[in-house]
Amino acid sequence: MRRSIATVCISGTLDDKLTAAAAAGFDGIELFENDLVVSPWSPSEIRERCTDLGLSIDLYQPFRDFEGVGPELLARNLERAERKFAVMRELGVDTVLVCSSVHPDAADDDDLAASQLAQLADRADRHGMRIAYEALAWGRQVSTWDHSWRIVKRADHPALGLCLDSFHVLSREVSPDGIAGITPGKIFFLQLADAPHLRMDVLQWSRHHRLFPGQGAFDLPGFVELVLAAGYDGPLSLEVFNDVFRQADPARTAVDAMRSLIALEDRIATAPPATAVEAVPVRRRAGRRLPPAPELTGHAFTEFAVDGHSGPELRSALRGLGFAHTGQHRTKPVELWEQAACRIVLNSAVTHPGPATISAFAVASSDPLRSLARAEALLAPAHPNVREPGEAELAAITAPDGTSVLVTHPGDDWRSDFLPTGAGDTPGAGLLTVDHLGLAQPFDHFDEAGLFYHSVLGLDHLATEEYAAPYGLMRSRAVANPSRSVRLALTVALLRRGEWAPAVADPQHVTFTTADIVATASALTLPKLRIPDNYYDDLAARFGLPDDFVTTLSSHGILYDRDPSGSELLHLYTPVFGGRVFFEIVERRHGYDRSGEPNAPVRMAAQRHRRLTAG
Amino acid sequence: MRRSIATVCISGTLDDKLTAAAAAGFDGIELFENDLVVSPWSPSEIRERCTDLGLSIDLYQPFRDFEGVGPELLARNLERAERKFAVMRELGVDTVLVCSSVHPDAADDDDLAASQLAQLADRADRHGMRIAYEALAWGRQVSTWDHSWRIVKRADHPALGLCLDSFHVLSREVSPDGIAGITPGKIFFLQLADAPHLRMDVLQWSRHHRLFPGQGAFDLPGFVELVLAAGYDGPLSLEVFNDVFRQADPARTAVDAMRSLIALEDRIATAPPATAVEAVPVRRRAGRRLPPAPELTGHAFTEFAVDGHSGPELRSALRGLGFAHTGQHRTKPVELWEQAACRIVLNSAVTHPGPATISAFAVASSDPLRSLARAEALLAPAHPNVREPGEAELAAITAPDGTSVLVTHPGDDWRSDFLPTGAGDTPGAGLLTVDHLGLAQPFDHFDEAGLFYHSVLGLDHLATEEYAAPYGLMRSRAVANPSRSVRLALTVALLRRGEWAPAVADPQHVTFTTADIVATASALTLPKLRIPDNYYDDLAARFGLPDDFVTTLSSHGILYDRDPSGSELLHLYTPVFGGRVFFEIVERRHGYDRSGEPNAPVRMAAQRHRRLTAG
Repeated sequence: MRRSIATVCISGTLDDKLTAAAAAGFDGIELFENDLVVSPWSPSEIRERCTDLGLSIDLYQPFRDFEGVGPELLARNLERAERKFAVMRELGVDTVLVCSSVHPDAADDDDLAASQLAQLADRADRHGMRIAYEALAWGRQVSTWDHSWRIVKRADHPALGLCLDSFHVLSREVSPDGIAGITPGKIFFLQLADAPHLRMDVLQWSRHHRLFPGQGAFDLPGFVELVLAAGYDGPLSLEVFNDVFRQADPARTAVDAMRSLIALEDRIATAPPATAVEAVPVRRRAGRRLPPAPELTGHAFTEFAVDGHSGPELRSALRGLGFAHTGQHRTKPVELWEQAACRIVLNSAVTHPGPATISAFAVASSDPLRSLARAEALLAPAHPNVREPGEAELAAITAPDGTSVLVTHPGDDWRSDFLPTGAGDTPGAGLLTVDHLGLAQPFDHFDEAGLFYHSVLGLDHLATEEYAAPYGLMRSRAVANPSRSVRLALTVALLRRGEWAPAVADPQHVTFTTADIVATASALTLPKLRIPDNYYDDLAARFGLPDDFVTTLSSHGILYDRDPSGSELLHLYTPVFGGRVFFEIVERRHGYDRSGEPNAPVRMAAQRHRRLTAG
Repeated sequence: MRRSIATVCISGTLDDKLTAAAAAGFDGIELFENDLVVSPWSPSEIRERCTDLGLSIDLYQPFRDFEGVGPELLARNLERAERKFAVMRELGVDTVLVCSSVHPDAADDDDLAASQLAQLADRADRHGMRIAYEALAWGRQVSTWDHSWRIVKRADHPALGLCLDSFHVLSREVSPDGIAGITPGKIFFLQLADAPHLRMDVLQWSRHHRLFPGQGAFDLPGFVELVLAAGYDGPLSLEVFNDVFRQADPARTAVDAMRSLIALEDRIATAPPATAVEAVPVRRRAGRRLPPAPELTGHAFTEFAVDGHSGPELRSALRGLGFAHTGQHRTKPVELWEQAACRIVLNSAVTHPGPATISAFAVASSDPLRSLARAEALLAPAHPNVREPGEAELAAITAPDGTSVLVTHPGDDWRSDFLPTGAGDTPGAGLLTVDHLGLAQPFDHFDEAGLFYHSVLGLDHLATEEYAAPYGLMRSRAVANPSRSVRLALTVALLRRGEWAPAVADPQHVTFTTADIVATASALTLPKLRIPDNYYDDLAARFGLPDDFVTTLSSHGILYDRDPSGSELLHLYTPVFGGRVFFEIVERRHGYDRSGEPNAPVRMAAQRHRRLTAG
């Protein structure tokens, strides 16, 4: 299917937007009126530019408050339309979006609306154009897809059809199932937008919080199936109003948008048809399938870029955690540190000194080449991986925050790149595996990151939580594979940080599992984070915990959470090392599946306190 | 009255918060549980720190989900409460906030709730403490102030009273008028928060969008009058959950908060009592009155700080606008430029080179000394005004964005500081007065700025509008004096700008009036901003304007707006000069009272286009 994007989805001037859409591989655009109005290019110049870029203009929009008016206003509206048809002819676009009227005086009269829309369609027809009528979720009289369809049927004009917008349909309570039964050829245009579930005014929800398919909570694959069942073969076109995307790099946003469509088409191609659709003949299945995401089996290693200042700090911290420096890279200043299945790589070959950073992490995949092929098909940038002769080949993808995601096979012998140091017989501290990585995301790319890890690596969105941290509100999204052997916690501040912010605004972390956190805590030989007594007093009061248990937690600085099902998390944080990194140790009991977010503010305040008092 | 602030209003660690509250002059705090839990200080250390800072702890909060439960849970809740009483004793606080339960299983049984709250009050009483029961607007069974009052009456316990929170009361439809009839002594605590009118889930509205009194749309003076009429004599305490304040400089936020209370008390002291209150005896009027804001009569002058690069650009622009360089400062590298009542000062004595900036603006006041006294009483920082012997004395206040606001008397001869150059017989371009200044505000201080200009200078909030600019969403707030001779447009981006942003992210501007914008446009000799033909095509279609009128507008690059009443704005923008400044010329017809925001995106795109094409 053809793929389009509304110019309103992305930031910048019209030139910025067209360039970004073309570079991301879109076939066409919806031209938003405001982008035309502020452009120094004439409509024919815009057409020319689009042609040069290989973009068609699939829709001109919007035309507002047309129907349900008195005769005088109708005449003015038709005159207004003629002017827009002239612009459309110059643009080379044949479909115009007419939104259901939001005018307070719009008449509650389907016959009147149908007859006036038919008159408009008649005018359009004379220009070889057509009218796509769309029910806005907040339309004055017409606010549901089935109502707009009744009016279009009543008007019965070949140049009048429907525009269906997934947001307007799925944000209302009217079931979308009947869409599959719309007369073939009468859906003129399909607009796609996802959104989180929010309890707010639908207009504000629509104007500020739409997302690309797969980033929100709507069932977009099911919706598109219904539309395809009705014989729709026009473009899949994104129309996403989002405050963050509107001010972010348009090139990045356009790629994120395209990735959402590729993933959507794959889901449609691979999903079994929904029940509602089976009842009607599926005329066409949207096509392109991706290589399926291979099963991931665990975190292979995590690499930190360190410099002369942060390197020694991290080495000392790893020693304190019971890690041993087991290998030295054959050709590079890179060290391997191990403890059971926990593997940390310290890479001193950094070019830009600064705080320690998770520069790469490797996951084990049952089919690394297929993982890479899937990533490429999803426009995930390949990472230049400098490989010396004899070194293991690691497929590498660049994540939205710039981190390299390496994909290894469980059988790969990437450790042969390292010469054994002979160390490794240290007793350790009982750390077993990597539980998850905590990756602070750039503000503009949080939703992009969620879609990236979901579509590229097949990590499911477990939960998104918001909490008040000492310096402002935070959002945390947990993603993981079904077996939970690969898990990430993506975090972002709800507002981009300003001048007054903590020195370590965006720490990253690695979390290890243990089977006995008290034993592990006793074995640690690194500086402790001091957890306030007030925390333990409150904990005892909140959960009604036995005194001796609380005393044990408190004496080791272990934090605690319990979910409503009774499963428990016991966890421990270290101070921040190397300027930006801390470690966490968790003991999950009875299937606790969150990331301990309720305790994140306690950790942040304790890390801040330590930084202030320990210098 | 005593003034308190909840620790949740401001950002940082507990130490940051206490320090900020004390510095801003608060008498006490509400200690939020989360701030205690993450603090390394023991409760008695917190008490000590507060005492040192001259702060009392007026309320401990919150205690949640207490009432309407079965016997087993009640026993646990009472046990939980005993632990909190122990903490409160150490803290030296005698009042605890108990919010109405939000637990899904909370029983719909007022007798049960009353009897359980009475049991809790009994326990509190034994410790010399008391319970302030508050109806959360989203409480499961109890969500209105009158319902909470019925339960407190039914419980009839001396240690049980009400906590009233203006947000919870005014966000609901139940009238607050009956509050004046609450039994004296039964309102234990009063929490104040303002908010904008928003159509959204009340919990989210409350948790993210509260504002300090005077920054939102609620009638706080009327509300406080009702509470005072009921004999309340406890503190006025702010409890404001706001995403921006939570991450902004706490010292600034605390001053903003204190200013809001000072202004509120002044409004209560000076306003005639509301009708509802007249019926009951007003036991006490909140006290402190401010010097009334003197009448402002106009913009006296606007000063730009310029350097060797921006100075020549601005001089050339002023010449092109028909200004004459009429005066040279006796002692400083400062020039006066004039045209009719429009006066611009170019100050080259800048210490930090950079783009031209509005460093100061002067307004004429009927009583400058009273203006200054009012500003001082409202904690508006005095600006150090270096004055040479023989120079005019100008009262100076620093606005939230750092701009100096100078207050002059219409009879002041501040121009005698300038030696006449002899110029001044230029014909000009018909500019008459300063219509308004456009001041881009720092993201963290937009609401602070609104309250500042309202309370300090007496400028009323006319309207706040949001619009989509090429690089993201913008918010614009117009404030003006009643005669409209002093008007400001305060703007801010809805999201703090990130890495992808226009070079001139926050331009400032000065807008001049003319009686004939076509004549003025013809007389200008500065580079024009090219307004797209598409804009005029759309304008004609939207407003049904005569062709020749549109041609006239188009030939001069004049933009147009019309409000529903038919009043019109014709206006003209210049390119950006000196890196950050542009000028606007307006002809307001038939009382047009907005600032032409619908055309701001057109202006932004045209300025961006010019910058790209003109180098």
